Amino acid sequence: MSLTISQRAQNMPESPIRKLMPSADIAIEKGLQVYQLNIGQPDIKSPSAAIKALHHWEEETLSYTRSEGEFEYRKNFAKYYQSVGYNIEAEDILATNGGSEALLFTISAIAEPGEEIIVPEPFYANYNGFASQLDVKLIPVSSCIETGFVLPPIEEFENKITPKTRAILICHPGNPTGYLYKREELEALKNLVLEHHIYLISDEVYREFAYDRKHFSILDFPEIRENAIVIDSESKRFSMCGIRLGAIITKNETVLSAALKFAQARLSPNIISQHIASAAHKNSGEYLKEANLKYRKRRDFTVKILNQIEGVICPEPQGAFYCVARLPIDDSERFAKWILEEFSWEGATTMIAPMQGFYSTPGKGVDEVRIAYVLDLEHLEKALKILEEALKVYPGRK
Amino acid sequence: MSLTISQRAQNMPESPIRKLMPSADIAIEKGLQVYQLNIGQPDIKSPSAAIKALHHWEEETLSYTRSEGEFEYRKNFAKYYQSVGYNIEAEDILATNGGSEALLFTISAIAEPGEEIIVPEPFYANYNGFASQLDVKLIPVSSCIETGFVLPPIEEFENKITPKTRAILICHPGNPTGYLYKREELEALKNLVLEHHIYLISDEVYREFAYDRKHFSILDFPEIRENAIVIDSESKRFSMCGIRLGAIITKNETVLSAALKFAQARLSPNIISQHIASAAHKNSGEYLKEANLKYRKRRDFTVKILNQIEGVICPEPQGAFYCVARLPIDDSERFAKWILEEFSWEGATTMIAPMQGFYSTPGKGVDEVRIAYVLDLEHLEKALKILEEALKVYPGRK
Repeated sequence: MSLTISQRAQNMPESPIRKLMPSADIAIEKGLQVYQLNIGQPDIKSPSAAIKALHHWEEETLSYTRSEGEFEYRKNFAKYYQSVGYNIEAEDILATNGGSEALLFTISAIAEPGEEIIVPEPFYANYNGFASQLDVKLIPVSSCIETGFVLPPIEEFENKITPKTRAILICHPGNPTGYLYKREELEALKNLVLEHHIYLISDEVYREFAYDRKHFSILDFPEIRENAIVIDSESKRFSMCGIRLGAIITKNETVLSAALKFAQARLSPNIISQHIASAAHKNSGEYLKEANLKYRKRRDFTVKILNQIEGVICPEPQGAFYCVARLPIDDSERFAKWILEEFSWEGATTMIAPMQGFYSTPGKGVDEVRIAYVLDLEHLEKALKILEEALKVYPGRK
Repeated sequence: MSLTISQRAQNMPESPIRKLMPSADIAIEKGLQVYQLNIGQPDIKSPSAAIKALHHWEEETLSYTRSEGEFEYRKNFAKYYQSVGYNIEAEDILATNGGSEALLFTISAIAEPGEEIIVPEPFYANYNGFASQLDVKLIPVSSCIETGFVLPPIEEFENKITPKTRAILICHPGNPTGYLYKREELEALKNLVLEHHIYLISDEVYREFAYDRKHFSILDFPEIRENAIVIDSESKRFSMCGIRLGAIITKNETVLSAALKFAQARLSPNIISQHIASAAHKNSGEYLKEANLKYRKRRDFTVKILNQIEGVICPEPQGAFYCVARLPIDDSERFAKWILEEFSWEGATTMIAPMQGFYSTPGKGVDEVRIAYVLDLEHLEKALKILEEALKVYPGRK
């Protein structure tokens, strides 16, 4: 016995998106401007209806809400789902403190310590964190930059299924890849989970950001209404990442009841967040259309510029607001640190996320970075120019 | 393989505080007024400074904050700690989504699946939930209503220590007991954790509500600065339960760094909550004094009335806003359901929390209920009158 920390805390990876903060602080202390392309924090304004709801706040006591979220909020959220073509009712929604909590509750509800969830890699790095915390194993199936991160052959998923497999988890559209699954890819997954009686968890928090083709949710398949669990969040949809409001959406009442028990233990989601998200959901159409258009332009611009830089390869993503680029470098962790701590160009530098932390297979992603195109075109241009100049002089260039 | 839910979800107890909601709905549908003495949701207004901060909200994008919470908020919170005599700096504070998340992160950081935490029972029922979710075992040491829930003899704690023991967890002042630990009781715990190299976790979210003697935090003992982890929350202090803002407070940097990794995975606490709690912390003295006085009067009133009811015993609590009463009944779960579904008096009924769920030893608390004195005196009087009348006719009266 000694005052140590747990193995699960030791195993817990640091967030690859946030662990460069100390290096960024070094740049900031030098007086440099830091363009943050590392984190999915958009610069887009939150809906004015949400801010107005704050300004007109009426309740004098900021009390708990029901553990599953207020009916009023869930009703408005369900209406949004209905407006985009899904038969979702308030009763199918459990509101959570961010999409993160929705994932934690979902994994807790369906998987035991030691059990397994299959995930195409690269995947959202924090999936590793949630799995570590709950002692569940993520089993990767590799996709790759050469194919633009399409879904790996379904046989590769099937080969990984064991008696311990509880679910397949996808991020759709993908963070970090920006990949938007095609209907036939989703159908292959659908058939697989039906055959093997496992869950299909689809993290659709970037659903609003689909560019070249329609986003099909897994909610589209009535055959898997019991298998399908969608993770959603208001963070990206409304550029309100700081309100920490997410949700589990499922027609599987048993899963929702199990998740509700975890939700009851933490009492309630945030009352203010639910009110202002309710306000945002009313007449959100125009807001969402504008945001989509803005990101599409940024996507087009970013991918074009990146592919013009010598030695850089960047497949075009069809969704979310990320892209993965292969750079002519030895090690993206080293490069990401170096560009912050030792490089600058015209008084500024650029922060990017090394890709290693988004893979679970060691050695993968070593020359890849994730770029979040969350700045306006003018700033994106500067940030990418810095990247180009940095690559010219980086000592570990290959 | 089949579409089942996990054992940990099945083991997860329903919240004894919230699981009576369907019975309350039955009463409400009948048109009855329901006095909620079951839940620690105070009727007291949140600080006007906090509401004003909402009305004057300036930021146009509700963005993520740092994972550990904004420096500005943690600085203001640290000042509060300094003002009540503890040498706490912003760097010793990790802001969380409620005290609930603070506990989840703390347990995750120090305990492996299968390891043990010793807790005096009765204890806050949701500790069971957090432990189930993380697959950690709570080992109870029983305190009892006859002694007013004083700390059980320290030998009983010592007898429960095994190589798997990672911590002792207390709630101070206690939920549900209202018990406020005396300095000598804390000293006994201090010596024990020092001797056995384990952590002492003190859930002090009710710290503002100490009535007959001073609240001594475990932060008072420099000898255990590495062992001591305090769970705090703004919920009860400022009657802002719905803003979901809590904190881990510790001088142990290793624990805080481990907890930060879990915090990074869920990205950030709520930006709005941090801003308005910051505002509330400025000049909070008068607000807190008034709230304390109000609860003290309610405590005095509640305990006096309860002890006047035939067959009822209620030791006087010195803190929090709960008391535990022994009622002349067969089964408090049955009684709590019955009083909602089948009883009414002058168009109203009363909701109370059965105590079984606050014990981990089966069979304990069967004739005990927790009463939250969170209503004004007029409503408390009616709610307790209903309880008195109900006890006269309850079929399971003993």
